[in-house]
Amino acid sequence: MSGPGCPTRCCSFPAVQKRLPVLRWLPRYSLAWLQLDVIAGATVGLTVVPQALAYAEVAGLPVQYGLYSSFMGCFVYCLLGTAKDVTLGPTAIMSLLVSSYAFHDPVYAVLLTFLSGCVQLAMGLLRLGFLLDFISCPVIKGFTSAASITISFNQVKNILGLQGVPRQFFLQVYETLRRIGETRAGDAVLGLSCLLALTGLGAMKSGLGRAAGAEPLCTRVSYCIVWTSATARNALVVLCAGLLAYSFQVMGCQPFTLTGRIPRGLPAFRVPLFSKVTHNGTVPFSRMVQVGAASDVLLPSASQNDYRIEPNQELLAMGLTNLLGSFVSSYPVTGSFGRTAVNAQTGVCTPAGGLITGALVLLSLAFLTSFFYYIPKAALAAVIICAVTPMFDAAIFRTLWRVKRLDLVPLCVTFLLCFWEVQYGIVAGVLVSGLLLLYAIARPPMKVSTQGELVVQPGSSLHFPAAEYLRDTVCKHLQAAPTPGSVVLDCRHVSSVDYTAVLGLAELLHELRKQGLALTLCGLQVPSRPGSCCWHRHRRLLWRPNCTRATQHLESGLPPGPAATCCIS
Amino acid sequence: MSGPGCPTRCCSFPAVQKRLPVLRWLPRYSLAWLQLDVIAGATVGLTVVPQALAYAEVAGLPVQYGLYSSFMGCFVYCLLGTAKDVTLGPTAIMSLLVSSYAFHDPVYAVLLTFLSGCVQLAMGLLRLGFLLDFISCPVIKGFTSAASITISFNQVKNILGLQGVPRQFFLQVYETLRRIGETRAGDAVLGLSCLLALTGLGAMKSGLGRAAGAEPLCTRVSYCIVWTSATARNALVVLCAGLLAYSFQVMGCQPFTLTGRIPRGLPAFRVPLFSKVTHNGTVPFSRMVQVGAASDVLLPSASQNDYRIEPNQELLAMGLTNLLGSFVSSYPVTGSFGRTAVNAQTGVCTPAGGLITGALVLLSLAFLTSFFYYIPKAALAAVIICAVTPMFDAAIFRTLWRVKRLDLVPLCVTFLLCFWEVQYGIVAGVLVSGLLLLYAIARPPMKVSTQGELVVQPGSSLHFPAAEYLRDTVCKHLQAAPTPGSVVLDCRHVSSVDYTAVLGLAELLHELRKQGLALTLCGLQVPSRPGSCCWHRHRRLLWRPNCTRATQHLESGLPPGPAATCCIS
Repeated sequence: MSGPGCPTRCCSFPAVQKRLPVLRWLPRYSLAWLQLDVIAGATVGLTVVPQALAYAEVAGLPVQYGLYSSFMGCFVYCLLGTAKDVTLGPTAIMSLLVSSYAFHDPVYAVLLTFLSGCVQLAMGLLRLGFLLDFISCPVIKGFTSAASITISFNQVKNILGLQGVPRQFFLQVYETLRRIGETRAGDAVLGLSCLLALTGLGAMKSGLGRAAGAEPLCTRVSYCIVWTSATARNALVVLCAGLLAYSFQVMGCQPFTLTGRIPRGLPAFRVPLFSKVTHNGTVPFSRMVQVGAASDVLLPSASQNDYRIEPNQELLAMGLTNLLGSFVSSYPVTGSFGRTAVNAQTGVCTPAGGLITGALVLLSLAFLTSFFYYIPKAALAAVIICAVTPMFDAAIFRTLWRVKRLDLVPLCVTFLLCFWEVQYGIVAGVLVSGLLLLYAIARPPMKVSTQGELVVQPGSSLHFPAAEYLRDTVCKHLQAAPTPGSVVLDCRHVSSVDYTAVLGLAELLHELRKQGLALTLCGLQVPSRPGSCCWHRHRRLLWRPNCTRATQHLESGLPPGPAATCCIS
Repeated sequence: MSGPGCPTRCCSFPAVQKRLPVLRWLPRYSLAWLQLDVIAGATVGLTVVPQALAYAEVAGLPVQYGLYSSFMGCFVYCLLGTAKDVTLGPTAIMSLLVSSYAFHDPVYAVLLTFLSGCVQLAMGLLRLGFLLDFISCPVIKGFTSAASITISFNQVKNILGLQGVPRQFFLQVYETLRRIGETRAGDAVLGLSCLLALTGLGAMKSGLGRAAGAEPLCTRVSYCIVWTSATARNALVVLCAGLLAYSFQVMGCQPFTLTGRIPRGLPAFRVPLFSKVTHNGTVPFSRMVQVGAASDVLLPSASQNDYRIEPNQELLAMGLTNLLGSFVSSYPVTGSFGRTAVNAQTGVCTPAGGLITGALVLLSLAFLTSFFYYIPKAALAAVIICAVTPMFDAAIFRTLWRVKRLDLVPLCVTFLLCFWEVQYGIVAGVLVSGLLLLYAIARPPMKVSTQGELVVQPGSSLHFPAAEYLRDTVCKHLQAAPTPGSVVLDCRHVSSVDYTAVLGLAELLHELRKQGLALTLCGLQVPSRPGSCCWHRHRRLLWRPNCTRATQHLESGLPPGPAATCCIS
């Protein structure tokens, strides 16, 4: 259905539009859209700058790398993105993954960016986006919920002002609790205040309705102020904390742990350094693929925003962002759930909003780095905690208990293993859900009725792992209650049969004949195209799909006996 | 259905009988059975002795190890076996596997026996026999066909009398062809004569009918002679070749390559040597599991012999044979297709025939080793080639082309990779067939009808990899041909839905509502037990399985619109 495009049409205008979605919206661009895009872009910019500084800390990199990673995605997505509100950039989860792979060395992180960009581009070009279908919702939920807890707890040390706490989650919990007495009062007070402020402003934001046009000016102005400060709350809180720290610095005492000196200016445009890494041989192929795949897991679904994204095109956009980003010292980026939501709520119309965001990031790199020195780490920690807390979904456990209990298995496996290592959790979750799928194929539901004839109705198609099971089911029921007439196999739910299952059916037929029983296949589906039905001339088990009642022959040296008949419904 | 037995009944007599099938047939044992069992046991013994010597050569071990491996299975299977005619012992394929793992050193081979016995016992006790369901018929056929070619070609060097030909298949073909000029005339003539004799006697055997009782005595005696020589043709040919070689030896010239000196007597009963192997650390866990799993692949199916085997019980018998066998210097054994067929054709009645076979093997170890010195290698090569040729199934390619073309993929992958390394071929084949299964789940057949309403009928249950695909299918058809009424999802073939698929349905419903369309689910199956249906209270998508017509609510903040209804058929 969704095969690769026809080669004769690959250079047509719709095909180019599909690859460069900017061509769809740019000709229709209007001034009204520009206004909304500028507001949305600026709002996202005010969110991304403090978050970028904070996430770099999660990734274990110097804070400027967060900003280096934040602008390329805006520009690339503007050209290649299919969704108007998705924003690519540093995210909490990707930072967590980078921290475990990059060994706190920017050179590794940049090389990872380059490699995961290559993997994503290759997946997009080879149309491997369908692989993402095999990551089920429980796995994603388990992963994001665990990551939310891990990342939040990772920041507790910054709020408490503790130094030298290990990265591993369990060690971190132990060490943080053990050294809780060493808490620095200034950091703790500031961190908690920032948390309170962010939570309060966030609650205000969600409580805020839309301003009606008919209200008096002062109401509208105050609404506007409240709305702006609630939407740009991250920037506001970080700004206030920074000013506070600056005042203390001027007064000669500093109760807060500060971010410290940041090199000013834009990153140099240069080829990622391979020599150092390949020399040590520490980034094997499996790691690139893991990071590439992990970033794909984070492909944000834009379905809640009234349109569908095209996974392969998104992979292309993300891959190109990472590939180009690696030339400007970016660490791997992906779609940000939080900023995408901010973008949508602010009313963005086209991906052009990203241009404003990108420009803001570049401007802050050029002019604000000396201010960043004074940002307290506790304030950034508060920003991170508020960003990742919504990713924790406690209700999913209750929901799955009610909806489908079996899905709790991949959820719990992923959730628990993610505390050990995030990537192990994802891999284990995908494997477990794959095994559950295979189990469903190997043991399809069998509806058995023993009134008069033995009627067995498989609940799904017959694939090879179920061949033995079908025979066992029939034989067991025949042993339990011998049937005088024939055995009926109701194939109404069977849309395909493979060779091993055909052999199993032939053997069943053979066994039944020895007991003097006939096997009737009923409800066979007429195949929509020839060849998709199962023909088995080897042992003369013929299903004739184009007559209403076909006889099945099994003539390979068997004595004449009751024939198996199959009727096509 | 086939869960582990109820704990309260595990010590009852039927449960003990299930574990020790000997208790089923021993009380009913009769003199008539004894006669047939003795004949069958002796016939299998006359087959197994020359084959054992030959297969040890395939495994790259001294020939006496073939005999050491041949008797334990007979005794253990007599107690634990479920099938009357299955014989456990050295086989061509297992010898091929051993040759690639044991590095031509008996110590490694014996340790492999011990370890694969442990793996098999564990699988049998943990009831993991169902894992064998995931090895499809095309994979087994590809594997045995490739092994048949590899093993046959492996013996060409012995027929030609070439020395020092490498083990790897492609190198072997190259080297054999390059050095074909060095062929030793004596070996070649003897080998080809043996091949001809074996083929002729084999053809005679299959052409031979059963002797009727009313014929004159001389006819019956001649029939008996022909039948015996045809059935015990391996022993006959090896005996003749050995006598010929002995005559030449006595005359002072020796045109044949001989087997050489074999230590006389039974193997010592001793614990397998761990020290040498663990010291070098060359048999990692993965290899044990590989050999254990490979021997399970060879679990012979006794279905053609009018009864069913119980995979877990067979695993127990095979595991115990290997475990005990490792104490008498056996290399890994498995069920032999060829000797099982001989056993069945000779009319064996119970596994007691194995006792005769085992006794024959022990007697030849005790008294015949000095004769084995004179057996020409070319004669053993002819025995092997005749034993493995029937395993090559050329017709399978044509059959699969007609029955199910997709199954050609695992067949060809297994077949071709097995020439590189047998174990890689099996693993790749199992992976490919697993991926094809997952693909079938991810892209279930969708029957779409666009006359009037858009009716979409998934051909199987909805699992998470298909969630996006279902939405895409509906959306694509809606784009191509906008529907005025509602969209109907015909769920008659859907027997289960998982959480991710429910979310996909909820999103589809959401999208359709925005287009003013309703979504009707029809043909829902009433679940056989509560909880197996899919309840989704999270977003108020309720399927009420216990009323004939249920309304589906989606109230999570959506504007009122055409409701989705679902009717349970």
